[in-house]
Amino acid sequence: MTSEMTVTNVITAEVLLENWQGHRRLTRKTIEAFPEDKLFEFSLGGMRSFGQMALEIIGMAVPTVEGVATGKWASFHAGKPASKSELLELWDAQTVGLNEKFPTIPEERFQAVDKAFGQWEMSGLAVIQYAIDNEIHHRGEGYVYLRALGIEPPHFWER
Amino acid sequence: MTSEMTVTNVITAEVLLENWQGHRRLTRKTIEAFPEDKLFEFSLGGMRSFGQMALEIIGMAVPTVEGVATGKWASFHAGKPASKSELLELWDAQTVGLNEKFPTIPEERFQAVDKAFGQWEMSGLAVIQYAIDNEIHHRGEGYVYLRALGIEPPHFWER
Repeated sequence: MTSEMTVTNVITAEVLLENWQGHRRLTRKTIEAFPEDKLFEFSLGGMRSFGQMALEIIGMAVPTVEGVATGKWASFHAGKPASKSELLELWDAQTVGLNEKFPTIPEERFQAVDKAFGQWEMSGLAVIQYAIDNEIHHRGEGYVYLRALGIEPPHFWER
Repeated sequence: MTSEMTVTNVITAEVLLENWQGHRRLTRKTIEAFPEDKLFEFSLGGMRSFGQMALEIIGMAVPTVEGVATGKWASFHAGKPASKSELLELWDAQTVGLNEKFPTIPEERFQAVDKAFGQWEMSGLAVIQYAIDNEIHHRGEGYVYLRALGIEPPHFWER
C-alpha cells in the first residue's frame, strides 16, 4: 500500500447516502414482492421471516445515523407491524428521517471511533457501512425466500 | 442536500480496498463451509449453486479493477474448477491480484464515467461498489443454502 493511496478520497457523504437510499429502494421493492401471508410467516432453514429481517434493518437506519452524528446511541423500537402496509409505513418514515439526519453528521464523526450502541468500537463510517452491508446481506436471503416461493425478485441492479 | 455535504470526503481508496478484502475473507469462509458435494450441486428455488455464484464473484474482481485502472475491460474466464480446493485456489489468486492492481488506479478514474465491460455506463467507483455489493448479495443467498443444509454460516461481522 503506497502512502499515495491513503490520501485518495473516493466517496463523498452525499454519494454514500445516495448509495444507501438506492439499496433501501430495492429492499422496499423486495418487501413488496412478498405475498401478505408470507412476509412474516415464511422462512427457510429455521431462519427469521423476511418481515422480521426488514424490522431489524429499519431499527438500524436512523439510530445509526443519529449515533454517528451525536454520539448518543439509542435503540429504535419499531413495534410489531401487523401487515405489509404497516411495515412499509415504518420503512418510508425512516427514509425521510435518513435524508433529514444524514446531512447533520459533522465531517470529523465519519472517522472518529466511538462505541456504537454501547458495544461496537469502530469509526462512524464503519458503522454506517455495516448497516448498509447488513441490509444487502439480508435482502439476498430474502431473494432466496422469494425464489423458493416461485416469485421473481426485483432486479438487483435497479435502484 | 447542502453543498457542504458534497465536499465531505469520507472513504479513501485504501479503506475501500480493505473493506472489499474483508468481505472477500468472509466469502472465502462461506465457500469453505459448504460440503464438497454440495458446493456445485445444491441450490434452492431453481437458483445457481453457491460454487457458480462464487465463480461469478471471482470473474468480477480483478477485471473490474483493471478496467477502472486502465479503461480496458476484459472478461475473466475462470474455467471450471472441479473441486472446492480448485475454487479456493482461484479465489486466492484474485486476492493477490486485487492487492497488486488496486493501488494502480489513478485517482481521477474513480470519478470518471466509463462504459464498464462495454455495457455499464457508470463511474469507476460505482463499478467497484457494484462488485462488492453483488458479492454481499450472493453470499447472503449462500447463507440460506447453508442453513437449509443444517450448517451454521460464518459470523457476518467476522472479516
